[in-house]
Amino acid sequence: MNRYMKMAFDLACMTVGQTGKNPAVGAVIVKEGKVIGMGAHLGYGKPHAERQALSSCSEDPAGADIYVTLEPCSHHGKTPPCTEAIMEAGLSNIHYGAKDLNPKVSGHQVLADAGLNVFHQPDEAIDQLYAPFFSHLERHRPNVTLKCAMSLDGKLALDDGTSTWITGEAARADVHQERHVHDAILVGGGTLLHDDPMLTARIEGGGVSPVPVVMAGGHVLPDGLKIFEHPERAIIYTTNETNLKHDGICEVKVGEWSPEAILDDLYGKGISSLFVEGGARVLTAFIKEGLYDRILTYVAPKIFGESRHALYKEQSASMEAAVQLEMVDVEKLGSDLKLTYRKA
Amino acid sequence: MNRYMKMAFDLACMTVGQTGKNPAVGAVIVKEGKVIGMGAHLGYGKPHAERQALSSCSEDPAGADIYVTLEPCSHHGKTPPCTEAIMEAGLSNIHYGAKDLNPKVSGHQVLADAGLNVFHQPDEAIDQLYAPFFSHLERHRPNVTLKCAMSLDGKLALDDGTSTWITGEAARADVHQERHVHDAILVGGGTLLHDDPMLTARIEGGGVSPVPVVMAGGHVLPDGLKIFEHPERAIIYTTNETNLKHDGICEVKVGEWSPEAILDDLYGKGISSLFVEGGARVLTAFIKEGLYDRILTYVAPKIFGESRHALYKEQSASMEAAVQLEMVDVEKLGSDLKLTYRKA
Repeated sequence: MNRYMKMAFDLACMTVGQTGKNPAVGAVIVKEGKVIGMGAHLGYGKPHAERQALSSCSEDPAGADIYVTLEPCSHHGKTPPCTEAIMEAGLSNIHYGAKDLNPKVSGHQVLADAGLNVFHQPDEAIDQLYAPFFSHLERHRPNVTLKCAMSLDGKLALDDGTSTWITGEAARADVHQERHVHDAILVGGGTLLHDDPMLTARIEGGGVSPVPVVMAGGHVLPDGLKIFEHPERAIIYTTNETNLKHDGICEVKVGEWSPEAILDDLYGKGISSLFVEGGARVLTAFIKEGLYDRILTYVAPKIFGESRHALYKEQSASMEAAVQLEMVDVEKLGSDLKLTYRKA
Repeated sequence: MNRYMKMAFDLACMTVGQTGKNPAVGAVIVKEGKVIGMGAHLGYGKPHAERQALSSCSEDPAGADIYVTLEPCSHHGKTPPCTEAIMEAGLSNIHYGAKDLNPKVSGHQVLADAGLNVFHQPDEAIDQLYAPFFSHLERHRPNVTLKCAMSLDGKLALDDGTSTWITGEAARADVHQERHVHDAILVGGGTLLHDDPMLTARIEGGGVSPVPVVMAGGHVLPDGLKIFEHPERAIIYTTNETNLKHDGICEVKVGEWSPEAILDDLYGKGISSLFVEGGARVLTAFIKEGLYDRILTYVAPKIFGESRHALYKEQSASMEAAVQLEMVDVEKLGSDLKLTYRKA
């Protein structure tokens, strides 16, 4: 992407996780080779990036170029359309990174019809930033990230279930950052009972905690679990009616809940991104159904050997039938590795 | 390391794999801030790096500094001692990277006694370069690198044994480079029978093939195996006397051969570095006994799920009992990853 789009992208990245159901968007206004304004969408219901950038202008933006990571909106939502603000300000050239797939948004068309020069500049990093947002609209299910901390040989825990402190501090801090940018977090009933996790996002200066979701199966959940004190009301999918006693303190939904049915239900609740933290059964279920977009593995410098707590508990019948991924990123986190893959 | 030592190190790295039982060594001679000579040891029996650098000098090296990656030798081996050449040339300051652990070498002492200024400048990268050489002398066993190509979940093959083309071309080319710099290569009897590998180093412009070694156990080896045509005579460690029929075309040693006993025997044959390529049983045996220095894993962007062909087939009883490693390096090779660990 060009340097101004890169600036806009960086602005967007600074606000990832704090814009609620809206995507993070950045905008930069350039006139005669000088950056005269910049801004980002800072929160749900707050002005869009284009308006923030326009209101920051150090000189009259008439005739200027705007670089914005997402196609400007053309409809009245929580705020009036950005296309209007752009036209009122007299901007000449509109460069945007990702097309807004919401059928109500046709900013490109509206601005072009008004005689402005509009340029769609697609970029993979920007597309990836908006994947959860697009997924929500395109596929009618949340964007799904599967996460695991594992040994070099793909084990989530020792055979006896021991899994505490597999990875180091830097990796654990990174997990909290990932939780912060997801709408919801899902664990299995076994993990819930075994670890009693808080499932909050604890990052420096706060963090937005994702809605805790439990794929409880037949497990009976006892009173006093930490997720019952989570800032967001937990959602429990279970086959076991006994768990209805927790309804109220959380939302208990009894039935045969497949991963697909859960995603469908969460989508209906406005959840656009789901962070699946395991354990082995839950990860296997999502992998087997192909219901994921990214796999994040935090790999510790350890070998566990044989253990039932494996990343994927199914057997591949052939090389073609094995789960195929595409490497996205590699990062060293202390003595651990963060490997990011997407579905191939 | 300082810039001249770095130059010497780079010179050494250029010849890794072509110096036989000698380590790769580089040397740079600097006078009044100018590089006036440089050289590397180019092959077993050929002049040492110090002499190569001295003979390349563009001006009289009297009073100059020499930077050499390894302590200069002080004894008559295949060539006369480098300490003599250094003194004859009138060099004033001697900077060396790694101490030579051979008790016959005391270049530092000899040169210091002659009134020269001698500086030991230890550096981790240089130490690592000489690890196989030091191991040979210090521990009386070859330096051992365990190698595997595996799926993200630590499987060397599907459960039915299928393992062809787990990794891509770049990773496979890298394996040949690794074979080239090792003295010997070891596989298990199962791998030999299943894959019938050539076990040669096929790199651009040639490559030195390591001595093929088979930990055959009770397997009966048939005639016509590719390793029988290997440029180096294979060594077969086996419990099965039937394999003695191959003695002559290769060396067959019958007995109860543990990994330790094999390393001991190879050490006696002058093997200073061993590349262990699997399969699962062999890797597990070496890991279990702690008989390795590095683990190289080439990780393909695939998940295989359950398979008996796992990196480590033992079970860890506790987190402390799990195999502890230290990450050394991460490299992207096409769509695969090369992860290098050493024993923690």
